[in-house]
Amino acid sequence: MNLLLAGTWDPGEEAAWAQALRAALPAHRLLLARDAVTPIDAAIVANPPPGSLQGLPALRLIQSLWAGVDRLLGDATLPDGVPVARMVDPAMNAAMAETALWAVLALQRDFFRYAAQQRERVWHVLPQRRADEVTVLVLGCGQMGRGAARRLQQQGYRVAAWSRNAVAAEPGVTLYYGRDGLDAALPQAHIVINLLPLTPETRGLLDASFFAAMPAGAGVVNLARGAHLVEAHLLAALASGRIAHAVLDVFAHEPLPPEHPFWRHEYITVLPHAAAQTDLRSAARIAADNIEALAAGRPLANLVDRTRGY
Amino acid sequence: MNLLLAGTWDPGEEAAWAQALRAALPAHRLLLARDAVTPIDAAIVANPPPGSLQGLPALRLIQSLWAGVDRLLGDATLPDGVPVARMVDPAMNAAMAETALWAVLALQRDFFRYAAQQRERVWHVLPQRRADEVTVLVLGCGQMGRGAARRLQQQGYRVAAWSRNAVAAEPGVTLYYGRDGLDAALPQAHIVINLLPLTPETRGLLDASFFAAMPAGAGVVNLARGAHLVEAHLLAALASGRIAHAVLDVFAHEPLPPEHPFWRHEYITVLPHAAAQTDLRSAARIAADNIEALAAGRPLANLVDRTRGY
Repeated sequence: MNLLLAGTWDPGEEAAWAQALRAALPAHRLLLARDAVTPIDAAIVANPPPGSLQGLPALRLIQSLWAGVDRLLGDATLPDGVPVARMVDPAMNAAMAETALWAVLALQRDFFRYAAQQRERVWHVLPQRRADEVTVLVLGCGQMGRGAARRLQQQGYRVAAWSRNAVAAEPGVTLYYGRDGLDAALPQAHIVINLLPLTPETRGLLDASFFAAMPAGAGVVNLARGAHLVEAHLLAALASGRIAHAVLDVFAHEPLPPEHPFWRHEYITVLPHAAAQTDLRSAARIAADNIEALAAGRPLANLVDRTRGY
Repeated sequence: MNLLLAGTWDPGEEAAWAQALRAALPAHRLLLARDAVTPIDAAIVANPPPGSLQGLPALRLIQSLWAGVDRLLGDATLPDGVPVARMVDPAMNAAMAETALWAVLALQRDFFRYAAQQRERVWHVLPQRRADEVTVLVLGCGQMGRGAARRLQQQGYRVAAWSRNAVAAEPGVTLYYGRDGLDAALPQAHIVINLLPLTPETRGLLDASFFAAMPAGAGVVNLARGAHLVEAHLLAALASGRIAHAVLDVFAHEPLPPEHPFWRHEYITVLPHAAAQTDLRSAARIAADNIEALAAGRPLANLVDRTRGY
């Protein structure tokens, strides 16, 4: 088959993926650019520039290398009827669970406040909370939400999870769902971790009313998409003390502009969209397996429901 | 029985312990100061001022509220022949394992470097290491070392432990012991976590030769005692890049003096001896159980070997 690799890349990234994918797909031909004559059977994409996949009549699969496909699906020129698969990479899920656990440990045990004390040369011991005194609410019950919830539960936290519909929860995790479920879960949530997909329904979910429903001094960890969170509302909630600290990996505009107030905010930890990178070593194999399934006529994995948005 | 509470306290701490211990020991009498006539059967201590326990002929147990007894045993006036028990508090052990895990996650995933980047408003993603690419060496196989090793192993790290003698290791943890064992373990240790007791043998163990034996760019986490580490040697190892970052909870002089270079060092995270506080709620019960064992003539728990030093 003829494969097209299309994306928006950091320096060196395209070449590294091309090498890994060619090694994983020796029987196929991987093109880095379209030409007028080669019929493309499948596209392997990483946030391709809008319009990249127009006019490919033989296209039968769009395989994303990234887990989030909101930008991809937002391209109005994306060919209808062609299946879209997202990346589900166990190494990336593990990285996301690590970041979630690190942020929760730091919030539970006040390590961000100790870092602020160090800058002021203040030696002062803060009250120590046990893990079983802290309730963590994980938003999202996909692969990443489940993986984070499981790890937190294993560490002794009280863990709740929220999903838009009733789903099976991880053992020991209390499931809430729907708008009523969120209203019930938030007043008990000392820490919220957002791992939702970005859809019209979840856009702007972390707003003033959301923060107001949490207990005073709560922590917010956004590892999903910047558009889930209303930045001005977070600043107000931090100013009032409703939210004590936020860990943010994603932003409305990325890279976060140099003049943005989040950079120097005492109660905001900024990460450069680094909570979980797709691991080329495992993900190239996973993408290749789906391409081989297509070639062999076997069922495709990790297909996106375009009407649902993930 | 008559009990004496003696310690060096932060404001409010003595009253809180007295209240918790009296609630846990309703059949006994707890004194906050000695008098000339009351024979003291047992002392409950938290780094008591040297000399506090002299001239108590009825004394049959010294129960520490803290896990580390090096300062207590360093008091030359400590009565010979009276058993000394240290605190072994599951809540404190859990807190220590949490701090160890937080520090390892932060070192593995470069969260300290991201914090430095935030201060400079730098948006730059660093290479992501998987947990199974990182070897963590835990120094010490006591309750705290074992607890930390177990948690790290559960998170997917390659975990080694070092002890002065051959002991049974946790499942999945590679045990090294003796000086030869340390020489074998250090070249593979990306991160070292010190949870040793302070004894003449372990004093100054983390010195220039120790750091030189580690791989370049390693991490050092000292959660035990300041005197385990030669501060000037650490500064040199950080300057050369041999050690990339250190997380220090304990220091030669505590509180860390305001003029100390560690406070403002880019590659040192300073904690104010807060890695694991004894949890009054569980520890008062544990101390009380040992007092009741003494009253009933049952065997005492957590006794210290004074010649060994822990």
